Amino acid sequence: MVSMAYITLLTDFGVSDGYPGIMKGVILTIAPEARIADITHLISPQNIHEGGLALFRSYRYFPPGTIHIAVVDPGVGTLRRPIALRLGAHYFIGPDNGLFSPVIHEALRIDWQHHYVHLNRPGYWLPNPSNVFHGRDIFAPAAAHLAAGVSLSELGDEIDDPVLLADLQPVKINSGWKGQVIAVDHFGNLSTNLTENHLFGLRQVIVRIAGREISGLVQAFGDREAGELIALIGTDHDLSISIVNGDAKKVLGIEVGVEVLVTGTPMK
Amino acid sequence: MVSMAYITLLTDFGVSDGYPGIMKGVILTIAPEARIADITHLISPQNIHEGGLALFRSYRYFPPGTIHIAVVDPGVGTLRRPIALRLGAHYFIGPDNGLFSPVIHEALRIDWQHHYVHLNRPGYWLPNPSNVFHGRDIFAPAAAHLAAGVSLSELGDEIDDPVLLADLQPVKINSGWKGQVIAVDHFGNLSTNLTENHLFGLRQVIVRIAGREISGLVQAFGDREAGELIALIGTDHDLSISIVNGDAKKVLGIEVGVEVLVTGTPMK
Amino acid sequence: MVSMAYITLLTDFGVSDGYPGIMKGVILTIAPEARIADITHLISPQNIHEGGLALFRSYRYFPPGTIHIAVVDPGVGTLRRPIALRLGAHYFIGPDNGLFSPVIHEALRIDWQHHYVHLNRPGYWLPNPSNVFHGRDIFAPAAAHLAAGVSLSELGDEIDDPVLLADLQPVKINSGWKGQVIAVDHFGNLSTNLTENHLFGLRQVIVRIAGREISGLVQAFGDREAGELIALIGTDHDLSISIVNGDAKKVLGIEVGVEVLVTGTPMK
Repeated sequence: MVSMAYITLLTDFGVSDGYPGIMKGVILTIAPEARIADITHLISPQNIHEGGLALFRSYRYFPPGTIHIAVVDPGVGTLRRPIALRLGAHYFIGPDNGLFSPVIHEALRIDWQHHYVHLNRPGYWLPNPSNVFHGRDIFAPAAAHLAAGVSLSELGDEIDDPVLLADLQPVKINSGWKGQVIAVDHFGNLSTNLTENHLFGLRQVIVRIAGREISGLVQAFGDREAGELIALIGTDHDLSISIVNGDAKKVLGIEVGVEVLVTGTPMK
Repeated sequence: MVSMAYITLLTDFGVSDGYPGIMKGVILTIAPEARIADITHLISPQNIHEGGLALFRSYRYFPPGTIHIAVVDPGVGTLRRPIALRLGAHYFIGPDNGLFSPVIHEALRIDWQHHYVHLNRPGYWLPNPSNVFHGRDIFAPAAAHLAAGVSLSELGDEIDDPVLLADLQPVKINSGWKGQVIAVDHFGNLSTNLTENHLFGLRQVIVRIAGREISGLVQAFGDREAGELIALIGTDHDLSISIVNGDAKKVLGIEVGVEVLVTGTPMK
Repeated sequence: MVSMAYITLLTDFGVSDGYPGIMKGVILTIAPEARIADITHLISPQNIHEGGLALFRSYRYFPPGTIHIAVVDPGVGTLRRPIALRLGAHYFIGPDNGLFSPVIHEALRIDWQHHYVHLNRPGYWLPNPSNVFHGRDIFAPAAAHLAAGVSLSELGDEIDDPVLLADLQPVKINSGWKGQVIAVDHFGNLSTNLTENHLFGLRQVIVRIAGREISGLVQAFGDREAGELIALIGTDHDLSISIVNGDAKKVLGIEVGVEVLVTGTPMK
């Protein structure tokens, strides 16, 4: 038994039907000492991009050795592989459908040690797995066995070709960058794939989105009046667009994918 | 102290007001070592059938000895009894209003040992219980005392007549079965009281619901195109009706209780 | 290491974006043994009054020594102070914006020992804290250090002037009291700042709200028929107004702040 194993859950299962609770039961039956934390169960149904981004933004705050189960899985029951990954000191378990692209892209960029396995050993699943709920029947048991001391190599055969979706990066334009909205949070704040690195070296920054123009960045929400449209550096060093004490998504009618332009004067 | 006691929570309290959190505080004050897992707090308000089914589907995945608190309780504060049950190795605590019917019916069917008590000993409640929140004042403390080593018999007097609602079973019809939708999940998937047992021995199966006809079952969502109406065996060996990557509930306008017919040709 | 430290979370972060999960990761990295319970993450965005009331109603059910993190924080990143409080045996951590007014008012009323500090020692924060997510970068780490045995005094300089919002109390009127709705729960039940103390000594009580008149209080929801408008003593000894098996908020179109009058005949 590994002492103090942490397991997180990130799914699109919702919080009304008890599916995440069932996964906890499966885990605790196999690994009675495991400590389980929910990341979210409200990823938009089947939205692999949204799930991958939420995982990317959260896993790094957990202790090394934490096992992250992520399930956004339109292909459940088809030939898509169930997989487990080790990236540096972090473990990931879920469907091989691109959901882990952001964490894998990052691990490759920073040259972390990586190890991928196909979860193809039914001895580490629940008996008679269904075709519709691998979260319960394959991913939760595999994570629990890992937490209980089984090694990654024992869980399945090594693979080297996990599904990787394109890594959406901003494009350089004249005196700035063109990016896009990649997430909208509970408050209606818009997060983009532009980061403080893209803004570095630019003066008199102008942000353009949905026909609106925002001059300059503020330091904090409270620097402006309620209702004002602002740009600022968000929770993940990302350029974010918000309405002070309001909901930018609703007011601007904006969804993920909308284009954002940032321009400025290069610093001398 | 029982080592490693697990307690689950299933209620219609919602997740906005802090009521489930308060129950956790009460439990941890009495049983500091107890491990608590939420099943769901979004049972439709006062819907005893929905709560009973969610409990039935989830409890079996938790370790033997787990104590399941379930509270969907329109009669809170009236003469309806607070009860605790042992069914096989599983414990259940909540109102005696039929909420436990599915788990009791199953336990009787498979001849599990059962033991029912009326939680009528105020020494195991919080002082001055309110008439509106027995989850906090009676059920959570009773579960915590059980987790901390008090026996079921000590919590109250034995009873033998818990409230039992009718066990809704499909009806045999010419060349098939008539059942009904018994649950709709977060994705809009329709679950029925027909199971793979009812389908066993039938060829060329046709499923009829709300004026639609579905020919044959698929193995997995991903076997058909997005938007297609399908029938398949669901998470609980149940006949389920879904729209691939869509919401069958919304598209068909279907609620719990809608009739489902399954017919086919008997295998030789 | 303090044995068995409990930490609760109460925020307006929602449950879709993973922010509460991230806070749990931060806590477990610093205090691997801490036990974490969610109170709620669905406080209405930026609603300090609602958050303060939910905290006031829940903290008392947790074991002495529990550390309560509360974050409803429109001024995050501005000069508003991050603070930590000890009130009696209970700890509180969050923004100094009035969120803790209800718990402080109560502590002062009952003359509990109190100790307030300004969380101004970056050694107990995450490195490079953002201006938009102090829940992750300042409050969660401070709580975790406290759970891991750091004293309150080490976390920051003592202060004696936390922000206190007015303590909304009912007003005495002819033969009764004028109060207001202070919360609406998941079921649509209306909670008021009138308590059973205000009603003590009154006979033939009449409750007036939104043009409706309710004669007398009932003991429990189940004492009347479904659909009937009732007044009763609620979960927190508060005068509550409900519709049996219905949603009083929706039916009456009532929000927090609506006036409630209670009158009656003084008992001899």
